[in-house]
Amino acid sequence: MKTLVEIAELLGGTLRGDGSLVIERVVHPAMVEGPRDIALVLSSKVFPLVESKGILAVVAPQELAEVNAPNAILVDRPRFALAKLTHLFELPVHVDEGIHATAIIDRSARIGANVSIGPHCWVGPETVIGDNCRIVANVSIGRDVVLGTDCVVHAGVRIGDRTRIGNRVILQPNVNIGGDGFAFVTPQKGSVESVRESGSVKNYNNEIIRIHSLGNVVLEDDVEIGAGSCVDRGTLGETRIGRGSKLDNMVQVGHNVTIGQNCLIVAQVGLGGSSRVGDRAVIGGQTGLPDQMSIGEDAVVYAKSGIVSDVPPGTVVAGIPAITARAAKVREIHIRRIPDLSAELKELKKRVEELEKLVEGGK
Amino acid sequence: MKTLVEIAELLGGTLRGDGSLVIERVVHPAMVEGPRDIALVLSSKVFPLVESKGILAVVAPQELAEVNAPNAILVDRPRFALAKLTHLFELPVHVDEGIHATAIIDRSARIGANVSIGPHCWVGPETVIGDNCRIVANVSIGRDVVLGTDCVVHAGVRIGDRTRIGNRVILQPNVNIGGDGFAFVTPQKGSVESVRESGSVKNYNNEIIRIHSLGNVVLEDDVEIGAGSCVDRGTLGETRIGRGSKLDNMVQVGHNVTIGQNCLIVAQVGLGGSSRVGDRAVIGGQTGLPDQMSIGEDAVVYAKSGIVSDVPPGTVVAGIPAITARAAKVREIHIRRIPDLSAELKELKKRVEELEKLVEGGK
Amino acid sequence: MKTLVEIAELLGGTLRGDGSLVIERVVHPAMVEGPRDIALVLSSKVFPLVESKGILAVVAPQELAEVNAPNAILVDRPRFALAKLTHLFELPVHVDEGIHATAIIDRSARIGANVSIGPHCWVGPETVIGDNCRIVANVSIGRDVVLGTDCVVHAGVRIGDRTRIGNRVILQPNVNIGGDGFAFVTPQKGSVESVRESGSVKNYNNEIIRIHSLGNVVLEDDVEIGAGSCVDRGTLGETRIGRGSKLDNMVQVGHNVTIGQNCLIVAQVGLGGSSRVGDRAVIGGQTGLPDQMSIGEDAVVYAKSGIVSDVPPGTVVAGIPAITARAAKVREIHIRRIPDLSAELKELKKRVEELEKLVEGGK
Repeated sequence: MKTLVEIAELLGGTLRGDGSLVIERVVHPAMVEGPRDIALVLSSKVFPLVESKGILAVVAPQELAEVNAPNAILVDRPRFALAKLTHLFELPVHVDEGIHATAIIDRSARIGANVSIGPHCWVGPETVIGDNCRIVANVSIGRDVVLGTDCVVHAGVRIGDRTRIGNRVILQPNVNIGGDGFAFVTPQKGSVESVRESGSVKNYNNEIIRIHSLGNVVLEDDVEIGAGSCVDRGTLGETRIGRGSKLDNMVQVGHNVTIGQNCLIVAQVGLGGSSRVGDRAVIGGQTGLPDQMSIGEDAVVYAKSGIVSDVPPGTVVAGIPAITARAAKVREIHIRRIPDLSAELKELKKRVEELEKLVEGGK
Repeated sequence: MKTLVEIAELLGGTLRGDGSLVIERVVHPAMVEGPRDIALVLSSKVFPLVESKGILAVVAPQELAEVNAPNAILVDRPRFALAKLTHLFELPVHVDEGIHATAIIDRSARIGANVSIGPHCWVGPETVIGDNCRIVANVSIGRDVVLGTDCVVHAGVRIGDRTRIGNRVILQPNVNIGGDGFAFVTPQKGSVESVRESGSVKNYNNEIIRIHSLGNVVLEDDVEIGAGSCVDRGTLGETRIGRGSKLDNMVQVGHNVTIGQNCLIVAQVGLGGSSRVGDRAVIGGQTGLPDQMSIGEDAVVYAKSGIVSDVPPGTVVAGIPAITARAAKVREIHIRRIPDLSAELKELKKRVEELEKLVEGGK
Repeated sequence: MKTLVEIAELLGGTLRGDGSLVIERVVHPAMVEGPRDIALVLSSKVFPLVESKGILAVVAPQELAEVNAPNAILVDRPRFALAKLTHLFELPVHVDEGIHATAIIDRSARIGANVSIGPHCWVGPETVIGDNCRIVANVSIGRDVVLGTDCVVHAGVRIGDRTRIGNRVILQPNVNIGGDGFAFVTPQKGSVESVRESGSVKNYNNEIIRIHSLGNVVLEDDVEIGAGSCVDRGTLGETRIGRGSKLDNMVQVGHNVTIGQNCLIVAQVGLGGSSRVGDRAVIGGQTGLPDQMSIGEDAVVYAKSGIVSDVPPGTVVAGIPAITARAAKVREIHIRRIPDLSAELKELKKRVEELEKLVEGGK
């Protein structure tokens, strides 16, 4: 419960109207139900809605100042305002307080202060759960795991043995941390090796031997991982995700991968074994990064890219195979020019024929 | 247990042979084990199998009427017959009747009549489960969820707080409904914004602020969602999937997405935040739809497409970048013509050289 | 605990130094902590690390024989040595011995000798679990499932009714075996059928009827399936994965698919309904194989390929649409030549114009 003037201050915005108005919820204009709802207006398309519903209070960007609501807070960077507003009126996931009677906590595990662990969770031996963690339901946490403070572990998350997790980490539902890496070898040279050497299949994978994963996963502070994503453990060393990096749903992080700090990795991206992602890199959805390859610091990779060589720091790449976004645009223009080229060539051929006739005739 | 004549009537097919034959199972010809099995024949390739196994009864399309089985039902639309047959002989997922002793149902939850809830499930406070729902095992349902009647919730499904689910909805194993949206903002302009404006990285994501998800997910009647798929909650409003729409496995539905009615969305498709899919659209596997973009009503999108602009209603699109399927075919033909163009150009150059010599010589 | 001489023998490598040295762990050079750690050296990049940390014992390929460590085992095929070393020092996933008090085992299920079943697991009626299986936690196994001996079933795995699983199968966390296939039909001709016939949408999916999945899934011996992957049950018959095949994380296997023996299928691959993968095929990450299509024996498919026709045995294919890797390379070279073609054509046009002037003038 906040007054409009308090919200305006928090947002650093300009208040118009009655600052003493009390607000309890921030919602989309379509979902305003009562006088204690404030609506976020991000487009003039919702102006009619604001009027017809008689919405009392809105937050809007400066350029939509003409919005017709009796009370308004005008802000410079509406998306940043949205972050602050949603923080103010956050609705944290429900977990009953304390350790649920059905939660199985190994005797040798250590549970911090003010921790909530919901129904049907399992915490394995020697595992340490930091203060204020909230573990929703049906979660499995293996042996010798360290979870920092203030983490939120949603329902169905799996955390494998020896995982190290920092503070304020958020794991969305059914996240898989610490599955075994996909690492196999044939006793003799295999088909992929022969393709690498000669371009064709000259050897056969008649036997496939497993390389066991003895390493672990490290998630640094403030990491967030989306629903269903998988982070495999290292073979001998770590798979590491740096401080503040955010992964969307169903992202695949192979064994021995290193992701830097403050990266943003959109849904369904696949990062092959031992690949590296530099600090602050942004990777669009459904992109694939092969084994061993790297994406540099601050690089921006468009969605659905197929990386085929290291991406230098600060570059913007796109396409399959991924090239700079500028080059990809030019490439596309060139492809679209093929029909013209074809027509021009045909026409030129006729002119040459004509010339040939003339010249031949003139001989 | 049905007689052949009953099955023929249900399918609207033509019966050949003994209508009193009793059938207990419908199977693939390869799996026929006894006289109470009926085999579905969809190709003449299985004719030898039908003969060698002495299969007693088959369902076959009219055009395979020559199938050599003593009893046959001939149908017009075999795939539709298959739907009816599999409905007739359905083998519903096993759930013990009633509420299992290990299921944790919050005191404030309301459970309808004839509901089965299996082992190790959790139903949170204020949640309402409609009549005849079957909830298999290890399922987590959060706070203030409404589940309609006759739903099937398979093992490991996660349903987040405030989700609204209609009647006859089917959620396959490990589906994630209501994870938080992937929504972040940098306090100042970030790298992606600078790329949008200038094409290059001029700003850096030194700080990433979370936008919390206060909205919810709405699944209308008769929706089905495949194993491991994720539907994120809206930021302030809803993420909504319309009546009768079917999603395959590992489909990603971002926050604030709206999917219309009777859509078919194949495995591993990704729908970005606030994107929209019109009624009856069909989206092939591994396709990506960026944030904010739309696919129109009745559009058909080929597998592995990369949408880059709104898809108009009723169009057929394909490719990366996605264009109309016809244009994509032409584009492909053009690309394959490049070597010819190259050769023709080379040849023409020679002829021009020849001409130049002649003309120069003739001067 | 092994001596260096024992390890050298196991690896078939050449020992240099003190064979009586006792080793307890194999780790990455960066993670060596004490005298009982042996480090695997795969690149000369870690030589400084080996020296600065004073690492006592290493395994290295023959070509890195100059590594400066007092004790070394030199091997021919270091990746194969890695497999043997990780087997020797394996750290199996933690499961408490025996059947956990919270595990719900149906009275009619049969559990073999020396089986461990962790907290909050469910084993349904008539299901058989073979000797030495280890089932970690929060696992659901339905009715009439057969699990062979020596399987490892990680946390959160879902195994549907009637699944047949061989010996030594490994299922990583949150794997989904036996979800229903994505199979629907419209009573009359639907939009996709009209597109197939005419290239455009002339029919509408006003009603969508479910085809129920009555079949099952069969996983043969030594199959491994990665975290979050989904294998749907057959419609009337089986979905089958052959002996020794390994699937990475988040792989989609549709209904009625057949995968041969010893295949390697990398993360996020999608195999459409009724598709077939031959023995020993290798499929790169994020590749899509449409319904009904096949990849032949020993074929190697590059990552992110979009298969559009059957891949013959032993071929190497790449790209969207997938063609032979050689053709794909040539195609790429041709596309990159378009700007040159364009320039050459322009130049040639000028020369023709020049000629035309001369010839016209000469007339």
